[in-house]
Amino acid sequence: MRIKVINPNTTWSMTETIAQAARAAVSPGVEIEAVSPAHGPVSIEGHYDEAMACLGLLDEVRKGEAEGADAYVIACFGDPGLDAAREIARGPVIGIAEAAMRSAGYLATGFSVVTTLQRTVVIAEHLLDKYGARAQCRRVRACEIAVLELENPASDAYRTILAECRRALAEDGCGAIVLGCAGMADLCRRLSGELGVPVIDGVAAAVATAEALVRIGLGTSKHGDYASPLPKPYTGLLAPWAPGD
Amino acid sequence: MRIKVINPNTTWSMTETIAQAARAAVSPGVEIEAVSPAHGPVSIEGHYDEAMACLGLLDEVRKGEAEGADAYVIACFGDPGLDAAREIARGPVIGIAEAAMRSAGYLATGFSVVTTLQRTVVIAEHLLDKYGARAQCRRVRACEIAVLELENPASDAYRTILAECRRALAEDGCGAIVLGCAGMADLCRRLSGELGVPVIDGVAAAVATAEALVRIGLGTSKHGDYASPLPKPYTGLLAPWAPGD
Amino acid sequence: MRIKVINPNTTWSMTETIAQAARAAVSPGVEIEAVSPAHGPVSIEGHYDEAMACLGLLDEVRKGEAEGADAYVIACFGDPGLDAAREIARGPVIGIAEAAMRSAGYLATGFSVVTTLQRTVVIAEHLLDKYGARAQCRRVRACEIAVLELENPASDAYRTILAECRRALAEDGCGAIVLGCAGMADLCRRLSGELGVPVIDGVAAAVATAEALVRIGLGTSKHGDYASPLPKPYTGLLAPWAPGD
Amino acid sequence: MRIKVINPNTTWSMTETIAQAARAAVSPGVEIEAVSPAHGPVSIEGHYDEAMACLGLLDEVRKGEAEGADAYVIACFGDPGLDAAREIARGPVIGIAEAAMRSAGYLATGFSVVTTLQRTVVIAEHLLDKYGARAQCRRVRACEIAVLELENPASDAYRTILAECRRALAEDGCGAIVLGCAGMADLCRRLSGELGVPVIDGVAAAVATAEALVRIGLGTSKHGDYASPLPKPYTGLLAPWAPGD
Amino acid sequence: MRIKVINPNTTWSMTETIAQAARAAVSPGVEIEAVSPAHGPVSIEGHYDEAMACLGLLDEVRKGEAEGADAYVIACFGDPGLDAAREIARGPVIGIAEAAMRSAGYLATGFSVVTTLQRTVVIAEHLLDKYGARAQCRRVRACEIAVLELENPASDAYRTILAECRRALAEDGCGAIVLGCAGMADLCRRLSGELGVPVIDGVAAAVATAEALVRIGLGTSKHGDYASPLPKPYTGLLAPWAPGD
Amino acid sequence: MRIKVINPNTTWSMTETIAQAARAAVSPGVEIEAVSPAHGPVSIEGHYDEAMACLGLLDEVRKGEAEGADAYVIACFGDPGLDAAREIARGPVIGIAEAAMRSAGYLATGFSVVTTLQRTVVIAEHLLDKYGARAQCRRVRACEIAVLELENPASDAYRTILAECRRALAEDGCGAIVLGCAGMADLCRRLSGELGVPVIDGVAAAVATAEALVRIGLGTSKHGDYASPLPKPYTGLLAPWAPGD
Repeated sequence: MRIKVINPNTTWSMTETIAQAARAAVSPGVEIEAVSPAHGPVSIEGHYDEAMACLGLLDEVRKGEAEGADAYVIACFGDPGLDAAREIARGPVIGIAEAAMRSAGYLATGFSVVTTLQRTVVIAEHLLDKYGARAQCRRVRACEIAVLELENPASDAYRTILAECRRALAEDGCGAIVLGCAGMADLCRRLSGELGVPVIDGVAAAVATAEALVRIGLGTSKHGDYASPLPKPYTGLLAPWAPGD
Repeated sequence: MRIKVINPNTTWSMTETIAQAARAAVSPGVEIEAVSPAHGPVSIEGHYDEAMACLGLLDEVRKGEAEGADAYVIACFGDPGLDAAREIARGPVIGIAEAAMRSAGYLATGFSVVTTLQRTVVIAEHLLDKYGARAQCRRVRACEIAVLELENPASDAYRTILAECRRALAEDGCGAIVLGCAGMADLCRRLSGELGVPVIDGVAAAVATAEALVRIGLGTSKHGDYASPLPKPYTGLLAPWAPGD
Repeated sequence: MRIKVINPNTTWSMTETIAQAARAAVSPGVEIEAVSPAHGPVSIEGHYDEAMACLGLLDEVRKGEAEGADAYVIACFGDPGLDAAREIARGPVIGIAEAAMRSAGYLATGFSVVTTLQRTVVIAEHLLDKYGARAQCRRVRACEIAVLELENPASDAYRTILAECRRALAEDGCGAIVLGCAGMADLCRRLSGELGVPVIDGVAAAVATAEALVRIGLGTSKHGDYASPLPKPYTGLLAPWAPGD
Repeated sequence: MRIKVINPNTTWSMTETIAQAARAAVSPGVEIEAVSPAHGPVSIEGHYDEAMACLGLLDEVRKGEAEGADAYVIACFGDPGLDAAREIARGPVIGIAEAAMRSAGYLATGFSVVTTLQRTVVIAEHLLDKYGARAQCRRVRACEIAVLELENPASDAYRTILAECRRALAEDGCGAIVLGCAGMADLCRRLSGELGVPVIDGVAAAVATAEALVRIGLGTSKHGDYASPLPKPYTGLLAPWAPGD
Repeated sequence: MRIKVINPNTTWSMTETIAQAARAAVSPGVEIEAVSPAHGPVSIEGHYDEAMACLGLLDEVRKGEAEGADAYVIACFGDPGLDAAREIARGPVIGIAEAAMRSAGYLATGFSVVTTLQRTVVIAEHLLDKYGARAQCRRVRACEIAVLELENPASDAYRTILAECRRALAEDGCGAIVLGCAGMADLCRRLSGELGVPVIDGVAAAVATAEALVRIGLGTSKHGDYASPLPKPYTGLLAPWAPGD
Repeated sequence: MRIKVINPNTTWSMTETIAQAARAAVSPGVEIEAVSPAHGPVSIEGHYDEAMACLGLLDEVRKGEAEGADAYVIACFGDPGLDAAREIARGPVIGIAEAAMRSAGYLATGFSVVTTLQRTVVIAEHLLDKYGARAQCRRVRACEIAVLELENPASDAYRTILAECRRALAEDGCGAIVLGCAGMADLCRRLSGELGVPVIDGVAAAVATAEALVRIGLGTSKHGDYASPLPKPYTGLLAPWAPGD
């Protein structure tokens, strides 16, 4: 089984962090291919970054289909391009926010999300609605850490995040923490150890879910709104990405 | 006042239909600039088309900002790229689905949407949730007309749509009809005349709303999640679209 | 085009404030007729005041129909009598709470309402549910200013409201402010200037919306539950208000 | 204990039907006073009728307070003026729709409402939302019987309603029926006997609930939004109804 | 009329408290039978306690059916086994949480729940969703008093609860208090006197509701999902509880 | 890794069917222990059966904890006793309805449930609400097959279920099918092959999810409402099940 993990931003050091978390989360024999797109933002911190990341992300899904990937993980907590990716994939496509939010539901009756910048909170809230997890989420909390600061060993990111998680447990009435950025994947185990509650990294949750679905023979429905895109021309720079027959 | 109307697909004959509907909907002295992007799908009929349309659409908003547009209308019923466009615009940005759904709320306690293909129904339903209009929408109905068939004078599109509207009024308990495609803009007045109920074309509703908001001095909030994108590099083909300072 | 703006309380000094805000919000050539009813409370600050204001308000709509008004605005933030007024009007009838709440949705993903007395908060919350805006409203905040204090130049109303708006922006995660009383219409521009975010006065939003809907040919649906009242006798004092054929 | 039952329409023959249903629903020693207002519509079949019925209805509550009524029932399925009445009453005020919808929740996981005219369906739906009963209501069904036809012995009202109830049980997945008009109170027992399921008449449910609440010492909260109206002048015809100190 | 009140925990001193509250809440001539089951937990403070309490509770309902009880009250605020009890009862079965939450809706637009341990808060929240009362509940507050401490005259339970109620009224914007444990039944009147707002004890609310429903001839629907259990064998210890024909 | 799969009914032939589906769904090296309780109903077809099944089910979880099980699956589509089981387990506890409903969300924007008896439909609907999946479920459909008929090779169960699935795909606008009974586990692959859409068996989904969660180091939160039951005596037959220290 081969799962393609796409970090939709183009910072390969973060892709490497994500790849390690993904490999630690699958069974022996499951292959992880982790990539960043050729085209796109170096970090995703808002609606515009998300929209512009879709081209490169979908390009990687198209290549993955040509190369026989069994499933995909979109490793950005806003789950950009998720529905579009599902239209062009046969296997499951899992967003890390979706996987983290759904997985938390098995472990606690309430969770809080700890994310990077305040400006992305509304993106997480929109996803909570989309996935039916609004009632189980007690609060979405921002640490005001920029995404790429997570890559900076000199930053205080770990301690800032730990402190925010502690506030969540003390104030929100939650029993679990969802980490709100793929760049936090390497902090998950340490946080969980210090906090003594389930801490859910979406990368691990998503690849483990993808493996599970493929193993039991499930893929994206091609009946209805995830059916393949209708063939048609695209113009200008986008001509190469037109859906074919 | 200048309102830029962006048809996110690249079929200029449809852009012309939209431009006429827009011009008929504004006060004297309000200028309508109607465009299609340089890059993108010839029609938008699913999640993948929507995601790929964002690049060209946002390119037009960027140009609009440089040229001093006062407001924008995104003239595709899925409101693609709406939140991203709001991040980069100072004035209001209005999606035609949002405008049609909100306008219907002033005129009837229930409305039905009559749209093109079944595969787009879920997109409309997602928007109903996003805009808080789910409870007022009685049903989203598809006519199974492809978007570009609306441009084909030989097609039976008008009669098919009229028949679906009649079924909506008879079966759904609705008091108004929302047309689910910018390409239906030229049919609105005729349908309304035959049906005897409010028929809402999102293009007219959106440009009239944009004019109204600009006139009373309102623009997109730059406080919080619609704040300008953070400056950062983009790589590859997307480098020219990186947000600057 | 003639828009009749009805201040459902009988304090004509407030009606004059409202009239000025309304005139500033429409295009050249749109006529604003602003009135208070002959019968009713001097201010509306609860459910009983609202219910008792309906007689005078609906009386003005009836007169408006006889005189050919093209649209109506109900200029009290509780939108009293809105559904009843729609039954007897041909053109659009817009409540200022509805217009403010819907307009805010175009400009920010979250807004807070700043209103007068705590006892009216539940009325605003009920309207948020009715209009599908509950999820976008971050909080309804009361200043504990009585409605007629807004008319008193010696009161500290402006500063109290400004301070509450600042708290909303600091604490609520909102990007825009909705003013919760027609009597605040004259404070809107000044507040917006000081706060640097969209501040939405329902009077301006409602008349601009009414103009927009009339211009694009839309009126209240007479199909279904906004159909004209069935003709029947009314008894006692109310006999003159019985719906005729 | 004295419960004042107010039929907000002015058709006294219907008030008599309601009075009989009410008297059959209370314990020995509980006194029922059933009245119609001096002013108002002969039947209530829409938003305008409802709004205009409030004056007379609230007048009766005011008189009831002066005369020491322990509780009130508003015997019209739209629950007109309910919140306003609660502001001016010390004891409980129960609407028949509220009582019927809440009572049904104790008896079945789903119920359907069978009401008079289609144009009132949206009023019932609005109340389902207000009382949190939307999820338990399977469907609101109209019989297209005018309210006063229920008073006409020559009409086929009983058989029409029975047939609609049977359709509800066969098609809606419901386990109980809520009757959607006070004028159906006298049909309840016979319908229940023929259908073999709980049939809930709001008049009986409301007076029994009012008795129960009074017996256990509960009345309307005067803390917060049901606090007494603030004293102020009313003008014109409404001057006598101004709230005093 | 005979109402069987079942305290699902096996602490008979609490059953006696409940019995007194129940007797004070019904009309003359209504008989209250208050029992604890032969088998079960001495107090119910979580999901496991609730699940294990069902056997004894349902056993008492079965006996009640054999002995001709007219209605049942389940006197534990989590309403354990309520749906199961309804399947095997002919008369109404009322949970005290359901009755308290629904009754509060008649008296105030918002209420807060004051309960025992934080770990039970989620149970109350789940019930708020089930009964459609989430929007009317402002907050569920725990006092961190163990259930059996309520029976201990040396404990400070009354003062702790009173203080929490005062905080609720000051901070939550509520107009009424719902007591979140059957063991608080004897504190209700005193709390109400000190607080000056409706304080709702579920035991009183439930028995009064049960009396009301029986008096007006209503019982549990046997059409649909509350139909009697299908006859079948049960194995092991549970064999005696198998549903018969 | 050892996953204990508990079929809460006591029909061991069905347990064997479930065990086979479970073993086919896990990675090499994951051990499946499939059991039925010593005490309980032979099938679960309503609220009473569910409540009475909890004792035996929780008994098996207690034994599993003593024996070191890493995770649990509750293999009945009503997810009986799920929250209680989580209180007494350290590892994840997965209900098959929860797993099926959440898994469907990754594969299609809408699914329908095809279950056994109409009387269980409301149980599935309640779970849809609990897990936030109501919006994604298009319809719950009953085949009117008793649970144990699924074990009867002479029955037409497969063809009846297939026909209902076909109706769901034709009428409901869904893209995937969720099977509403553990006893259908062996039909899943054949149905999926004939229908050409994802067909989700909760048993496979639940064990695969359990494996995934254990592999990435996640268990049930012991912080908050899934904390271990408080130690206390239980009386009568239930004394052996009292929670200890």
